[in-house]
Amino acid sequence: MIARAMTETSLAQRLLNGDRRALARAITLVEDDRPEGWELVREIYPHTGKAEVVGFTGPPGVGKSTLIGALTKARRAAGRTVGVLSIDPSSPFTHGALLGDRIRLSEHFLDQGVFIRSMANRGALGGLSEAALQAALLLDAAGRQDVFVETVGVGQAEIDIIDHADTIVLVLMPGSGDSIQALKAGVMEIPDVIVINKAEHPLTDTMVREIRGVLSLANLDRSPEEVRGSWRVPIIKTEATHGRGIEELVSALDEHRAHILSKGQLSERRRRNLRNEVLAIATARMRRRLEEELREDSEFQHLLDEVVERRLDPASAAATLLERAAGVEQPVE
Amino acid sequence: MIARAMTETSLAQRLLNGDRRALARAITLVEDDRPEGWELVREIYPHTGKAEVVGFTGPPGVGKSTLIGALTKARRAAGRTVGVLSIDPSSPFTHGALLGDRIRLSEHFLDQGVFIRSMANRGALGGLSEAALQAALLLDAAGRQDVFVETVGVGQAEIDIIDHADTIVLVLMPGSGDSIQALKAGVMEIPDVIVINKAEHPLTDTMVREIRGVLSLANLDRSPEEVRGSWRVPIIKTEATHGRGIEELVSALDEHRAHILSKGQLSERRRRNLRNEVLAIATARMRRRLEEELREDSEFQHLLDEVVERRLDPASAAATLLERAAGVEQPVE
Repeated sequence: MIARAMTETSLAQRLLNGDRRALARAITLVEDDRPEGWELVREIYPHTGKAEVVGFTGPPGVGKSTLIGALTKARRAAGRTVGVLSIDPSSPFTHGALLGDRIRLSEHFLDQGVFIRSMANRGALGGLSEAALQAALLLDAAGRQDVFVETVGVGQAEIDIIDHADTIVLVLMPGSGDSIQALKAGVMEIPDVIVINKAEHPLTDTMVREIRGVLSLANLDRSPEEVRGSWRVPIIKTEATHGRGIEELVSALDEHRAHILSKGQLSERRRRNLRNEVLAIATARMRRRLEEELREDSEFQHLLDEVVERRLDPASAAATLLERAAGVEQPVE
Repeated sequence: MIARAMTETSLAQRLLNGDRRALARAITLVEDDRPEGWELVREIYPHTGKAEVVGFTGPPGVGKSTLIGALTKARRAAGRTVGVLSIDPSSPFTHGALLGDRIRLSEHFLDQGVFIRSMANRGALGGLSEAALQAALLLDAAGRQDVFVETVGVGQAEIDIIDHADTIVLVLMPGSGDSIQALKAGVMEIPDVIVINKAEHPLTDTMVREIRGVLSLANLDRSPEEVRGSWRVPIIKTEATHGRGIEELVSALDEHRAHILSKGQLSERRRRNLRNEVLAIATARMRRRLEEELREDSEFQHLLDEVVERRLDPASAAATLLERAAGVEQPVE
């Protein structure tokens, strides 16, 4: 136990010194859900909270990786260090697409100031989201000044993953109509910054107008005070492959940070996110423990047979499980 | 207690007799998460499992409600009774859109053979998904032969809600490029039937080809035996406002049912879904109980302060919570 603690201390120390190999090893420990990973995060946690964390979401194919690549270049030119965390979806036939994305970031592979890492979804989204936050904390502790977290997807689950970010960027391209519809219907929450990439497309300005319409509709639900005091979501047009619009995006990110700092919203946001994170980790562990207990459990199989044969309803089966699982008393309903 | 049980028995009895007002009241009880609602589901559960449950998902604006309206008409013409459950997203500015959707179903409002109900998302998606399944069970017990469940959205969370369905239909329209990208990237699971609505659009056939490409790519991950034995996802072109393609959709739904019945997949699917449902209800209740315990908990606020001030990491805070919450022993990591 003492020997293990020693090793961990030195891994933590190397990580805090910015050692890239220590960082890579640490993220693997977290991704594999190893106790040493959690122990490590516990050690380095007091050194976190300094990085500026930006989350990017949006449908596949809009050029998020290219955009992050261009942004990384700009941040490096300003002398800042960058960490990129790319969260992969779970499908078996995804490899190709994400390999391509990684190649788009490859010009940074030899730059010591840039650390790029993909994380795959190994199970429930909750689990991945949990691991992604830990990895972001590791990048933060390792001294990365900018941490970019990227998710592929267009639903609420994807927003949840990057919800720990200080700034959330939704990346679209002309033609990503579903996402605008989802924004309009309130399925997707309003992000802090919207980027329309591949803006050389002739329909870009139509799309900008459409998004402005959605945003002003969203404002109708707010009081005039809220609207005045609140952040006006900028819509930035970029052509990431040619580096166009990246300067404007950098400014928008800086302005958003200044805004949330000046309004005290950064600490509010972080408190809310950390609260949700604590609850999410607790819930994920409760579920995992339950699933582990049930894997080889003949009593559960019997309970399930009862449910399948319509003799016992799912909620009663769940109540029975909860009663048994932890010996917790269950209110009789 | 006895008096309450009596009342419930009679509500259950009226529901089992197909009484529409009893059905409406029962769904409200479930939606409001009232103990009587859960008690009612327990009573009627032995009478469920007969309805053919079809789930519809897809981005907002593709015409899911119109399609379900047309399908309802076809099923009614064949003498079947229909229940429609429409799951609304949580946004405050959604009302307009869904009111429109309800109007599109309005020609069925006076038909006693059709029961239409919207359910709103009141909190976590888990909670809504839980309530939606209970409502579907109530429709089933009330003798609805076809139950159509509709969700607005394009992510995994939306698929989870309709995962209890026997058949999952993804509805797209020409131009819903994000969804095809999401299918391609494996963010969205392959549904059982794909509908391209508004098929009068000139780009429809291009879209069909693109989707076929995605589907054959998905098959590359399977063995030849799996592909031979497995369901070939049909792509149905519809113009729901004119009733075009609805007959083909009805046939595809019937064929899918025949397929999963002949392969024993229907009972397999239902067993898996019921298992997930039991675990989801158990997890949701654990989380809710935890949140309730913490709402006014000064110790939790203190724990959270520690996390915000970077003295205690989120995972350790979660472990402390779990230890305390149920007196469950926690492995020391």
